[in-house]
Amino acid sequence: MNSPIRVTVWHEYRHELKSEAVKKVYPEGMHKVWASAISEHLGNAVTVRTALLDEPDHGLTDEILKNTDVMTWWGHAAHKDVSDAIVEKVCNRVLEGMGIVFLHSAHYSKPFKKLMGTGCGLKWREAAERERVWVINPAHEIADGLGEHFDIPHEEMYGEIFDIPAPDELVLVSWFEGGNIFRSGCTWTRGKGKVAYFRPGHETFPTYYQPEVRRVIANMVKWAAPRSSSPFKLGAPNEKVPLSPITSKHVVDDAIHKH
Amino acid sequence: MNSPIRVTVWHEYRHELKSEAVKKVYPEGMHKVWASAISEHLGNAVTVRTALLDEPDHGLTDEILKNTDVMTWWGHAAHKDVSDAIVEKVCNRVLEGMGIVFLHSAHYSKPFKKLMGTGCGLKWREAAERERVWVINPAHEIADGLGEHFDIPHEEMYGEIFDIPAPDELVLVSWFEGGNIFRSGCTWTRGKGKVAYFRPGHETFPTYYQPEVRRVIANMVKWAAPRSSSPFKLGAPNEKVPLSPITSKHVVDDAIHKH
Amino acid sequence: MNSPIRVTVWHEYRHELKSEAVKKVYPEGMHKVWASAISEHLGNAVTVRTALLDEPDHGLTDEILKNTDVMTWWGHAAHKDVSDAIVEKVCNRVLEGMGIVFLHSAHYSKPFKKLMGTGCGLKWREAAERERVWVINPAHEIADGLGEHFDIPHEEMYGEIFDIPAPDELVLVSWFEGGNIFRSGCTWTRGKGKVAYFRPGHETFPTYYQPEVRRVIANMVKWAAPRSSSPFKLGAPNEKVPLSPITSKHVVDDAIHKH
Amino acid sequence: MNSPIRVTVWHEYRHELKSEAVKKVYPEGMHKVWASAISEHLGNAVTVRTALLDEPDHGLTDEILKNTDVMTWWGHAAHKDVSDAIVEKVCNRVLEGMGIVFLHSAHYSKPFKKLMGTGCGLKWREAAERERVWVINPAHEIADGLGEHFDIPHEEMYGEIFDIPAPDELVLVSWFEGGNIFRSGCTWTRGKGKVAYFRPGHETFPTYYQPEVRRVIANMVKWAAPRSSSPFKLGAPNEKVPLSPITSKHVVDDAIHKH
Repeated sequence: MNSPIRVTVWHEYRHELKSEAVKKVYPEGMHKVWASAISEHLGNAVTVRTALLDEPDHGLTDEILKNTDVMTWWGHAAHKDVSDAIVEKVCNRVLEGMGIVFLHSAHYSKPFKKLMGTGCGLKWREAAERERVWVINPAHEIADGLGEHFDIPHEEMYGEIFDIPAPDELVLVSWFEGGNIFRSGCTWTRGKGKVAYFRPGHETFPTYYQPEVRRVIANMVKWAAPRSSSPFKLGAPNEKVPLSPITSKHVVDDAIHKH
Repeated sequence: MNSPIRVTVWHEYRHELKSEAVKKVYPEGMHKVWASAISEHLGNAVTVRTALLDEPDHGLTDEILKNTDVMTWWGHAAHKDVSDAIVEKVCNRVLEGMGIVFLHSAHYSKPFKKLMGTGCGLKWREAAERERVWVINPAHEIADGLGEHFDIPHEEMYGEIFDIPAPDELVLVSWFEGGNIFRSGCTWTRGKGKVAYFRPGHETFPTYYQPEVRRVIANMVKWAAPRSSSPFKLGAPNEKVPLSPITSKHVVDDAIHKH
Repeated sequence: MNSPIRVTVWHEYRHELKSEAVKKVYPEGMHKVWASAISEHLGNAVTVRTALLDEPDHGLTDEILKNTDVMTWWGHAAHKDVSDAIVEKVCNRVLEGMGIVFLHSAHYSKPFKKLMGTGCGLKWREAAERERVWVINPAHEIADGLGEHFDIPHEEMYGEIFDIPAPDELVLVSWFEGGNIFRSGCTWTRGKGKVAYFRPGHETFPTYYQPEVRRVIANMVKWAAPRSSSPFKLGAPNEKVPLSPITSKHVVDDAIHKH
Repeated sequence: MNSPIRVTVWHEYRHELKSEAVKKVYPEGMHKVWASAISEHLGNAVTVRTALLDEPDHGLTDEILKNTDVMTWWGHAAHKDVSDAIVEKVCNRVLEGMGIVFLHSAHYSKPFKKLMGTGCGLKWREAAERERVWVINPAHEIADGLGEHFDIPHEEMYGEIFDIPAPDELVLVSWFEGGNIFRSGCTWTRGKGKVAYFRPGHETFPTYYQPEVRRVIANMVKWAAPRSSSPFKLGAPNEKVPLSPITSKHVVDDAIHKH
């Protein structure tokens, strides 16, 4: 892992262009803020590029996909505008080993839903309420640099039931002022790829400038980067030759096996 | 859980019609054999119907889906002939609470792949070799009635890497004479539905007549049946009213939230 | 599973005898209340006895242990008064297949700590605050009969970090008015025994009369009952005879193996 | 993670002194071989010391424990000679964040049993049979550098049922010529400490000279090293002051809470 982690920050990037309110909070687009958070914490250990929905191929050419170690993904209003063919490619790259970090409303993005196999629904409320994010697994490297909890003063609420497969690892759980809780920091492995989800980050709040939030995003990128050269290929190869001699007496009608 | 579990045994049912070799082993079709295994062990606690690929709607009308508590699924050569619309309906029924048990080559079926979110590949070899299925979680009700292990004298081999998400519960692991191992009895939860996978059962071997195999299938059906009335709905409902009073002082630009 | 589940409700039973405040809430002892909750919901499917710390052998003779399918455990001020020998017996019975349900302050009991292998610490606060218990896995039979959440008007707070191994299944998560969250309904398997933990239930609040709380306790007892006859023995048996012939050429110095 | 991982290799170190056969295979003691494997792969990223059962305090003074980031542990015939006080200290250090890697017969060591909470039994057979170790999670950094599987020509067999809690991550599963399978590479988290178990390594076979085995040991050490500064303390602190204002009306008898 001596060469830098090649990160592609993917963004829908439409709210900032259409809504004055969002533009006021993220004038250059949220992708710039995520990229800066990742670089701030990982420095020379990463190279970061961005890719946007409205670029050709959504900015995700085969060449770029092939040369991405970890992708971050944010989408909200335009999930349906993401081409199924690109989604297929992104998910296959994950299975082959690319890490991917889904942010906030990306819970309803096509690649997240496809990788999870569930509906990925949740409850939500925009009341600018306080969110308190608790670390429940302080041993996990995603929690590195965090205290026991951190507060986000005003956030959109996401509440359980969050319709996801039980996470392989549950690292962060949020408390909301209005009475809800949420599994906010989760990880899974899919094929050879590592997948993380991080809840905070509504486009109308300055959440992505908050130090703890930036730290978690960078930690998740680092965690999701490939760390194993052990081989893995998609597909179902026929292993004609047994690895070990087969010695038991078989009374097999050969004709049966010609199918 | 006093009313019987309504089971729908789904089958591709083509091999038996086309191949003399398969017909010899399963003259009335494998679906009859699974149905008999389930009834044999669960008796009055179940009602069992069958549904076949080449029936209208693959035998899976909305009415039948709605009235199915647990489905079993076997497919092999005709996975691609299953309509995407029916697959969508089956998977949604799982998320809403229907249990589903995937058998052998159904690892590559559309609904299994969709629920897993992975490639679902594996290694395979047809050498009629001995399979030894080990119970590694004897507390699990899927293992009820089994000894420490059972042997299947001649089977097709399935070997790791099995490209699935880490199972929520791993109950059975197979040893193969030729040198491979396989996670043969796995469970997951998806939405409100319980999902099980059971490896043995190639169409050219009399595996489905073997008592232990029949027992596992019946156990999985029983395990996958709904056991909770707790509510769950697909989707992402807006919870306008906080459950708890929000009392902290918020300085929120209301304009921001009109989006 | 046709014969009734034999339940032993174990209780420290000291607070009620010493504190007028506690006696006012639970005049006959909390064990009577748990027993009634279990019987209320499971009826003829259970037989319930109680056992108390200050009875001979803490009420847990070998005969009673042997004839217990599921135990419930509550302790608080007198954890240290439980004999290590009895703890050893209880834990071994769990490994051999007895289910066990730990209630509230039993998180710090000897058998819970021994079965978990961790410190089992947590944060706590007595402010009579509101607790909202959320169902996050509505498919789980422990959630049967519950709504999306239920509220306990006044409870002692338990907060994360809860120093437990990651639960095999996380079913309930609590929100507390004062800003904390907690994994309130958890399950594990240890050996052949099923283990559940349920948070609510401080001795100074009438929590154990609340219908949802009673339901969860009964559900956990049902869930923890043995459901598999598959064999399991403590120990490390030498399997002298291989099940499969060993055919590779071995150059082994026999002397080496005499140790 | 810029300062080197401080590794303490702990060894029972009795077989090599008593048995000519073992001494022939490991003339300087197995601890030297493990230390060399770790240094070979991790180089300047580690400093490695050894500690032995028959040294004062088993080589594990408070000072050494405090300055150990990851410990490896091998024991066999003398598990019972390890002092309970030292075991307590080792386990507490794990809960506080020290990683620990248990090798082969350490499955029956006191600290492993204490951290697992189970009996940790298994089947075993000394027939010098072939073991084939399969990678089932190629994304895991413990698998880095491994192929799909590797073979150990002659090994002691360990077979399921392995009486451990379900691993948080299952990375390696072994196939044995004589018909058994085994979960050979497992991980757990306990408190803030990361725990790994690796099966191969009987004292009478040259297993620890085999490149893949050495690689796994080094990978496990690297994986188990602390990676998070997030706080964690043993114990159950009283949080007198709520983090969030408690605003609901409580009718609480104060007397009740004086206990």
